[in-house]
Amino acid sequence: MELLKVDTVEEARAKMDVFFQDVVLAYEKIAVEEGLGRVLYEDVYAPVDLPEFHRSTVDGYAVAAKDTFGAGEGLPAFLQVIGRVEMGEGTNLKIRSGEAVYVPTGGMIPEGADGVVMVEYAESLDEGTIAVYQSVAPGEGMILKGEDIRAGELLFSKGRRLKSQDIGALAALGIRYVKVFEKPKISIISTGDEIVDPFSYIKFGQIRDINTYALWAMAKELGAIVTYRAVIKDDDELLRRAAVEALENSHILVISGGSSVGAKDATARVIHSLGEPGVFVHGVAMKPGKPTIIGKAKNKAVFGLPGHPVSAIIVFQIFTAYLLEKMQSLDGQKKLEIYAKADANIHASPGKETYQMVVVEEVHGEYLARPVHGKSGAITLLTKSHGYIRIETNKEGIQKGEKVKVILF
Amino acid sequence: MELLKVDTVEEARAKMDVFFQDVVLAYEKIAVEEGLGRVLYEDVYAPVDLPEFHRSTVDGYAVAAKDTFGAGEGLPAFLQVIGRVEMGEGTNLKIRSGEAVYVPTGGMIPEGADGVVMVEYAESLDEGTIAVYQSVAPGEGMILKGEDIRAGELLFSKGRRLKSQDIGALAALGIRYVKVFEKPKISIISTGDEIVDPFSYIKFGQIRDINTYALWAMAKELGAIVTYRAVIKDDDELLRRAAVEALENSHILVISGGSSVGAKDATARVIHSLGEPGVFVHGVAMKPGKPTIIGKAKNKAVFGLPGHPVSAIIVFQIFTAYLLEKMQSLDGQKKLEIYAKADANIHASPGKETYQMVVVEEVHGEYLARPVHGKSGAITLLTKSHGYIRIETNKEGIQKGEKVKVILF
Repeated sequence: MELLKVDTVEEARAKMDVFFQDVVLAYEKIAVEEGLGRVLYEDVYAPVDLPEFHRSTVDGYAVAAKDTFGAGEGLPAFLQVIGRVEMGEGTNLKIRSGEAVYVPTGGMIPEGADGVVMVEYAESLDEGTIAVYQSVAPGEGMILKGEDIRAGELLFSKGRRLKSQDIGALAALGIRYVKVFEKPKISIISTGDEIVDPFSYIKFGQIRDINTYALWAMAKELGAIVTYRAVIKDDDELLRRAAVEALENSHILVISGGSSVGAKDATARVIHSLGEPGVFVHGVAMKPGKPTIIGKAKNKAVFGLPGHPVSAIIVFQIFTAYLLEKMQSLDGQKKLEIYAKADANIHASPGKETYQMVVVEEVHGEYLARPVHGKSGAITLLTKSHGYIRIETNKEGIQKGEKVKVILF
Repeated sequence: MELLKVDTVEEARAKMDVFFQDVVLAYEKIAVEEGLGRVLYEDVYAPVDLPEFHRSTVDGYAVAAKDTFGAGEGLPAFLQVIGRVEMGEGTNLKIRSGEAVYVPTGGMIPEGADGVVMVEYAESLDEGTIAVYQSVAPGEGMILKGEDIRAGELLFSKGRRLKSQDIGALAALGIRYVKVFEKPKISIISTGDEIVDPFSYIKFGQIRDINTYALWAMAKELGAIVTYRAVIKDDDELLRRAAVEALENSHILVISGGSSVGAKDATARVIHSLGEPGVFVHGVAMKPGKPTIIGKAKNKAVFGLPGHPVSAIIVFQIFTAYLLEKMQSLDGQKKLEIYAKADANIHASPGKETYQMVVVEEVHGEYLARPVHGKSGAITLLTKSHGYIRIETNKEGIQKGEKVKVILF
C-alpha cells in the first residue's frame, strides 16, 4: 500500500470531484404527486402559458382602459354592457370603445379589453348601461396571458429539489410527469469487535451499534435509500465479503469504525483489495475526522468513517453529503445555515479544520451559539446540539462575541 | 348566520387554542428505524446507562491514577501488567496499586482503575512490567458508566421530532419501539367553477387546480397524510357532500377558493351546516389572507382558505401548520428562520399583518432579503421566493437596511 499524505478538506473534495466523476445516477420518470423532495434530472420548460388567457383578478367590468381615463366621482364614464363572461367558460365577445363586459375574478377577458373596473367603482344605471367612477390603467385588474409563466420559458433547472409550491406550479402547467434522479443507494457497515446490533442480546463488555442507525437516518434525510446495513467484526475477510455484497446494489458504501489498533487500517486494506483505484484519501486535516478514508472501487464510492458517532456523522456530512449533492447536480438552494454570535471562546486545533457542536438560542433578536462539550464518544453531544460551526484550518479559534455561521442539523 | 368581526392573527390563534383543544391525535407504536421525522407521544427515559461500563477512550493501560502522579520523561513510574482486556468482552480483573491492565479503545476498564495511560506514554520493559512516562488524572482516557446518559434520565421529551442522531441514541440504549403521534390526516378541497383537475381535459377559459397539489405537498412536508382530495364546483350542496365525506376520515379539512362573489361565503355556509359550533373566525386582519375562515364541526378542524395560491399557502402556514404543531405538542425546536437585512423598502398594509415573499441572498457574510413582487394569482411569486417576512399589524413597513426575520419555505 502506498503512503498517502493527509489532505485538507478542500484537497479531499477536489480529489473526489475527479475520482467520482463517473459515479452517476440514472433517472426515473415519476408522477408530479410523488415529486416532493425529489431532484430534477433535467431542465423543465413551460409547455403552455400561465395563465392561458388574459384573466380577471377582480369581480368587475372588462373595458377599453382609455374609455375610463379622466373618470372620477364627479364625472363618471358611461359604458354599454354587451354581455357577461361565465366562470370557467371561454368567450367570443369583443369589446369596442364605449363597451363593457362583466367578468368575475378568474374569468376570461374578452378581446379588445385591456383593463377591469372593480364592481365597487361601477354603478348599473339600467339593463345595458353602467357609470364608471374611477379610471383604470391598461393592465389593471387583470393578469395577462403568460404573465406568470410564458410558454417555452425555463421553469426549473436540473438539480432543483422540488418544494411544495413547485408541485403546485407543475400542476398549474398540466405537467404530469417529471424526470428525477433515481434515489442514491447507500450501504452502511459498522465494524468493531465490541459492536453489536442494538436489539440483539448484549453481553457485558459489548456496545450497541449507533452508527448504522444514525447514518441510515441521515442518508434517508438526504434523499438516499439504504440498501444494505450490517455490523461486522474486525476481520478483513468478513469485512471484504460484506463490502463486495454491499457494493453490488449501491452507489456508495460507508464503513464506520473499527476503533482498535489493528482495525484502524482494515477499511483501507479492504478498499484496496476491492479493485482500482482504491484509496485516494487517507487521513484528513480535520477534527473530528482525522482517520477519514475515501476510495473508489468497481466504480462505486467508498468512505471509511471513524467509529465515534460524532466523528462519523461529521465526516458523513462533510464528504458523503457533498458527493450526494454533486451526484444530483443540486444547485445552491438555501442550506440550513444561520449566522450567530459565539457565546464563549471556542478553541480550534491548529492546522486542522475544526467542527464544534453548538446549541443555538435566540436572545433579543439575535442568535447565540453556545459550544457543547463532551467526550468524543458521547452521543448526547449530538442529540443536545442544534448544529455545528466550522472553524477554518488557519484560524486559531473563535472569540466570544464573534460572528459565526452555524450549519443546522 | 351571525356576524363575525375580523380577528387579528393572534386573536384567531387564541380562539383556535380553545376550540381545537379536543381535536387530538392518537398514538402508534413504531420501530425506531421508522422513527425519523416522527413526533414523540410521550417522554422517553433511558432504560440503561450509556456506556454501561467504564470504557476506555484510548488504547492504553488502565491504572490507579495516583500511581502515575509525578511520573514524567525523566522519572517513569513502574507498574506490573496483570493482564489484558479483550474488545467486546467483560473482565474480572481487579487492579491494585502498582498494577496495570492493557485495554483497547472501547474496552471495559477493570475494577480498581480510574485512568488510562495511552500506549504512546508507556514502554514495555519485559513480559510483566511497563514504564509510564506521563501522569494521568483520575477519569482521564476513559468515559464513565452513565457519563453520556444515566439510566432513568429523561432522554427526549414528548413533542420532539426525531432527528437522525436521535435514532442513533435510541439504538444505543437498546430502545426498539417508541410511541409517536399518529400522522395527522388532512382533506383538501379546491372549489371554483373555473377550477379543474390539472390532468383532465381543459376547456378554454378553465384553470388548472394548483392548490390541492401545493397544499397536499405542504401537508406532507409537515408530516401529515392527505386522505381526501377533490376539486368541487361552486355549489353548496356538492361542497357540503364532499365535506361530509372528507371529514369522516380526517382530523382537518382545508377548503380553498371559490373566488367568485357568490362562492365567497359558501365555505362558511357549508361549515355552519355541518354542525356545532361552526365558524368561529370569519376574516383575519392579514394580507394576504383576509377572507380566512376557521371553524369546527364534528370535532374536526375546518379551514376556509382564499383561492389564490399564494394566499392559500400563507394561510395554511399561519393557521393550519400552527394547529399541526399544537396537536403534536411540538416543542420549540429550531424553525427555519434566519435574520436578514431588507434590501429595499417594503410596504405594509396598515391594520393588517402583512406577509411579503422574499428572495434571500448571502452577500459579504450576511443575508439580504429582497422582496419578490407579482400579482397575487401568480404561482411564480412562490416558486421564486425562498421564504417570507411577517410585518406586524402596527408597523408601517420595513425600511431598506432594517433587520428582518425570514421564515424559510
